[in-house]
This record gives sequence, structure tokens and C-alpha cells, in this order.
Amino acid sequence: MNIITISREFGSGGRELGKRLADLLGYDYYDKEIIATIAKKQGLDANYVAQSLDNHGWQSVPLTFRSSFSLPVPSVQSSLLLEQKKIIEEIAKTGKDCVIVGRSAEVLLSDYAPFRIFVCADMEAKVRRCMERAAEDEKFTEKEMMQKIRAVDKNRARTRELIGEGRWGGGESYHLTVNTTGWEIKQLSVAVADFIRQWEGRGE
Amino acid sequence: MNIITISREFGSGGRELGKRLADLLGYDYYDKEIIATIAKKQGLDANYVAQSLDNHGWQSVPLTFRSSFSLPVPSVQSSLLLEQKKIIEEIAKTGKDCVIVGRSAEVLLSDYAPFRIFVCADMEAKVRRCMERAAEDEKFTEKEMMQKIRAVDKNRARTRELIGEGRWGGGESYHLTVNTTGWEIKQLSVAVADFIRQWEGRGE
Repeated sequence: MNIITISREFGSGGRELGKRLADLLGYDYYDKEIIATIAKKQGLDANYVAQSLDNHGWQSVPLTFRSSFSLPVPSVQSSLLLEQKKIIEEIAKTGKDCVIVGRSAEVLLSDYAPFRIFVCADMEAKVRRCMERAAEDEKFTEKEMMQKIRAVDKNRARTRELIGEGRWGGGESYHLTVNTTGWEIKQLSVAVADFIRQWEGRGE
Repeated sequence: MNIITISREFGSGGRELGKRLADLLGYDYYDKEIIATIAKKQGLDANYVAQSLDNHGWQSVPLTFRSSFSLPVPSVQSSLLLEQKKIIEEIAKTGKDCVIVGRSAEVLLSDYAPFRIFVCADMEAKVRRCMERAAEDEKFTEKEMMQKIRAVDKNRARTRELIGEGRWGGGESYHLTVNTTGWEIKQLSVAVADFIRQWEGRGE
């Protein structure tokens, strides 16, 4: 079984890259499905689950989280976090090749030795991508968008610090780090899929 | 003309990767040649030139170095640095496809829009590689080797800070960051060469 995890900077195109990789390689794809499953199991609203997991009321979760999941302070967030861990592990246990975007899956599934990808881009490119995709009713200035990007990524970096070893976005924490600036994601995904095929076939 | 620059952590196998890429792509290859040329032009010993450039007597070079090369304090090191810059620019001016390892070529040649690669590896893998390659007369313990690796990389990070924008080893500073851990460099170089071919052919 091959698992590919995608960690990404906000606005870098990591999600699109992950989806296209799954299509090219014929793998299952998990992204928002994870949130939807948690929401269903816990009888909560999916948006609420996403926000709770992303916005980190649970930054207070102690560092012992790494080695032990018996959290001293039960909370909605830690319960969601445990549910998320369980669901990601269930995905892995199906034994089917898959791509998982975000959710620190590269740490949670380290026993399965996933191929870990980090996706980044130049700030200018990220702002442009986000501006293009912003809904009509949420128009940001470029400066506001830049601040939003920084805030989201700061949260992602903190999550990684809390639950796993190694730096979020540090080259040594991943097998491959790609900068999407200057690429069409469609073409980049072909190049990355070829790279992964060579990784999976190495030593043959 | 295509220029590929390789920045790398000490012991990551970046030099071997660069050499193999040049072979696979049919590009010229520059590494120690640059030092040898400086030494010849300045009538100095090549080892002395390499050490002067790597060990940073010139960390005192002011930050204005970025925008101006008229250094207020002439020194052997700044003169070597200017010579190095000149030689790297001469290489680019030949107009021939090439791979350049180290020497901050990715910053010095930014006008030529090189394809910038960063090569890293897990510390354990770097120590093992270095231990295997250490000369008979320079046996380090693993702990000493780890310290040496950290010291060399700290110098490289500082050089980058001094002469260019962006973080040394930061994903956003390169097009591609590869972790060599778990690869035979020979196989990895095939995968990276394919990736570069797709970059060069994008939009076609």
C-alpha cells in the first residue's frame, strides 16, 4: 500500500495538486471527507468541526499529546482531534493506496511510511491564487489576504509542532518539497506523479 | 539556456546528484572548477581559496553587499568573493546549459532565472554518508561528525543571508527541495532529471 500525504501552505495549490495526483495515480483521495466523517460521527456541523480543528482552541493541548493520548483536560477540540486521528488511521487500515491532504496525516501515519510532500509558493503567487478564488462576499485587499495566509500557516506550523517531531515546511520533514510558482498545477502534478512512481519503483 | 543550481546540506549527496544530473541532461558541470579558476587567477592555493570562502572571515562583509559590490573594507575574502561572482557570471554568459553546485549561484544568477534545487537529508543519513567518505586520517566520532555537519550548514545559511534574499533551505527559496534519505542518488537523479525536463517543457 502506498500513502501520499500533502502538507501545504495556504494558497499554494496543494489541494489541487493532491486531487490531480490521486487521479493520475488511481489512488483514493481524502481531504474534506475526513471532516465530514468526524462531523457525522459526532453529530456536529462540518463547518464547526473544520473551524475547531483549524483555529486551535486546542493549542493548550499539552505536549505529552505526542506520546500519550490520555488528555488530562477533555474538551471538544481534543475529542475532535482524537476522532480525526482514528479516522485517518482507519483510512490507512483499509490498505488502499491513497492521497491525504492536510490534517497532519504525515505524522499520524508515520508507521505506514507515507511519501510526504510539502507544497509551497511565493507569497505573491499565493495572494493572487487566493484573490482569484475568494467568494464574492469575502473580498479582501491584497494586504489582508497576505495576513490571512500568514495566520493560517502559523496555525498549521503550530499544529505540527504540537503533534509531531520535525519542522512544518522544513525540507528534512518531507520527501519532496515543491514550489508551485511558475507551474500550471496540472503540469506540475504530472511531474510529481512521475517522481513518486520512481520512488515507489526504486530498488527494483 | 538552462541553468540548474544545487544548494545542499553537508553530507546530503547534493554534489553527486548535481554531477549525475549534468550527465543525464548533457549539461556542463561546475563545482570545484570555480575554486580552481579563482585560485589560478589570483595566484593562490586552491585549498586556501576554498577555506577562505567557506569559513567566512568575511562574515563582517556589510549587508550593503546585496545591493552594492563596492566593499568599504578590502580584504582577501571580499576580493575572493568578487572574483567568484565574476566567474559564475562568466559561466552564465557562455550561454551553455549547466549545473552549478554551491557558491550561492542561485542568488548570483537570479537574472538568469535558474532552476533552483535544494538537497537535504535526515541527520542520521548525512552522518552515515560522511563517515563512509571520511579519509583514513580524519576519523570523527558520530557526535563530532554531527557537529561538523551543523557547523558547515550554519555557515552556508549565513552566506545566503548575507548575499541574498530568502532563507537558505526554505522551501519557497527553491523550485524543488529533495530529501535524499532512502534513495540511491543514481535513481534519484533520474527522477529529478525527469522533473526538470517537465519544468523546461511546461507550457509547450
